[in-house]
Formats: sequence, C-alpha cells, structure tokens
Amino acid sequence: MREVISIFVDNQANVLTRVASLFGRRGFNIDSLTVSTTNDPNLSRITVVFNGDAQALSQILSQTKKLEVVKQIYTLEKDSSLYRELLLLKVSSGELQRSSIKDIVDIYRGKIISLSKDSMIVELTGAPEKIDGFLEMLACYEIIETCRTGITGISRVSNNVESEDC
Amino acid sequence: MREVISIFVDNQANVLTRVASLFGRRGFNIDSLTVSTTNDPNLSRITVVFNGDAQALSQILSQTKKLEVVKQIYTLEKDSSLYRELLLLKVSSGELQRSSIKDIVDIYRGKIISLSKDSMIVELTGAPEKIDGFLEMLACYEIIETCRTGITGISRVSNNVESEDC
Repeated sequence: MREVISIFVDNQANVLTRVASLFGRRGFNIDSLTVSTTNDPNLSRITVVFNGDAQALSQILSQTKKLEVVKQIYTLEKDSSLYRELLLLKVSSGELQRSSIKDIVDIYRGKIISLSKDSMIVELTGAPEKIDGFLEMLACYEIIETCRTGITGISRVSNNVESEDC
Repeated sequence: MREVISIFVDNQANVLTRVASLFGRRGFNIDSLTVSTTNDPNLSRITVVFNGDAQALSQILSQTKKLEVVKQIYTLEKDSSLYRELLLLKVSSGELQRSSIKDIVDIYRGKIISLSKDSMIVELTGAPEKIDGFLEMLACYEIIETCRTGITGISRVSNNVESEDC
C-alpha cells in the first residue's frame, strides 16, 4: 500500500536526518521524499512516499510525532488529496524521431524546454500515474536521463466544502 | 552561494539517512531535497540544494563521494543546467477574489486544478525564480497552504552540442 505522509518540521540542520533515520532503521525504503520551504520561514515540509501496510504506517506516525522538531504530521489520503510530480527527461532525438516524440509530449501536455540537434529535454507535471504512462510511451526511445521530483500532495478538502477537480 | 548537487545512490533503505547526515553534521542546512527513482530500478537520484561557499561545497562533494552507496555525484552549474520546481498552492478565493487570482495564474501559465466555493488549488511549474515571483504576486491574498517539491535539475549539455532553451 502506498502511503503519502506530510510532515511539518522546524527548518534547521539535522532535522531531515532524524526523520529519515526513523524510516531507515525500520527498513522502510522511501519511494520518494521531498523537503522544501513553506510560507512560514521557520517551518519546512517533508512529503514522504513509502510502501507499507497499516501497521507500518501507524508505527511510523507515532514514532515521528514523538520527535521534538516535528510540528504536525498527517497522511494524505488518495480520495481527498491531489498528488503531483514533476519530471524532467532528456531523450535522444535525431531528425527521424523528433516529430513522433513531440506528438507524445503534446498529447501529455508536456513542454519541450530545450532542444539540440540530437536530443531534447521535456518537462511534464501530473499525477504519478500520468508520469508513469508517459515514460512507458517513450520506453522505445533512447532515454538519456530522467529526473523526478518525487510526489508532493495537498488536501482537496477545505472548510468542509466539497471541492471539484478541474 | 546556492549549489545544486545531483547524487546517484543505491536504491535501498538507510541511504538517504547517510547522505543527509553528512550535511547535518556539518551544520549545512538543506534548502530543498528531492529523492526519487530513476530509469535504473537499482538507483535513486538525490538532488540537494544548499547554501554554502566553495570550500563547503568541496568538503561535501569529497565526503559524499566516499560513501559506498554513492555511485555518482556532480554539481549542476547554473549556466549549463535547467532547474525546475513544482508548486501546489491553496488560496482562499471567494467570488470577489476569484477572477483576479485567475488572471495571475493565467499570466504565469499555471493551472487551477481544484476549485471550491471558498478556495482554489493552483499547480505551477517553473524555474525557482518564477515560483518565487508568483508567490510574491499572491502575497496579498490569503494563502492557506503551499507545497513545493524542491528543485530538480538536468544538464542542458548533450554530446557537446550546444542546446537552445525553448
């Protein structure tokens, strides 16, 4: 079961180490992790994606909560959250492949952000499943490099008013 | 000086802890960090952004290289790399603010991905400076939540052919 956890922590050195080591010590491998600033300069936000069962999740939540540097922690449930990920991909593309790769990029509403005679760099944002699908479509081309940011997520629910995805 | 470092590591538990602790032990606070899968299932990629001088950078590079789990490490120079970041932002928006917020989102080529009667969620991808500019433009509105993935970057240079940004 894939779990997405959002953790607000003090913005200071060593905090990431302490949170990451909780996962590492229990042998939970992290699928992806992002940490960056928030609108409060004193707080950072860590978004962790890991695969584990309900028991593992409950263990991790209760252990992480105990850390003094952790201010808030919650899981982002799939039904009530929006997950997004950013992909940068460099693909080999001579004159012969350029047009067919561009078609796929256009269909996925990606952007070609750099072009050279023999390669292009594509930027694509979307739900993780969309990123996976795009990568599958390009699997038959020569991928030089892929960079994914890992998942970040936000709760759709706001003041108990049901929101609509656009 | 902001430095963006790309580190390829074995995809296994505890690796992130070991890399993060190198930064933490030296008191270097990480501005942002992303870790996620690559096109090789045995490798993960960590992209770290931190502020430090040339000496600090050289220390970090040489210490990190020594870790057995680290397969490759390099800095992404600003002149020859593309940096991108993803922002999800939930902003309070009643009927009165909706149109003016939408204008700003359109100008920045963001996407409104969820809408309720009193708030909206915006997705924006771009260079970190663009994300910062967008947040400044929205500073006078009531921001409920911001989630940034942290920076990921890719080298523009490919096979010594100069590439053009699009």
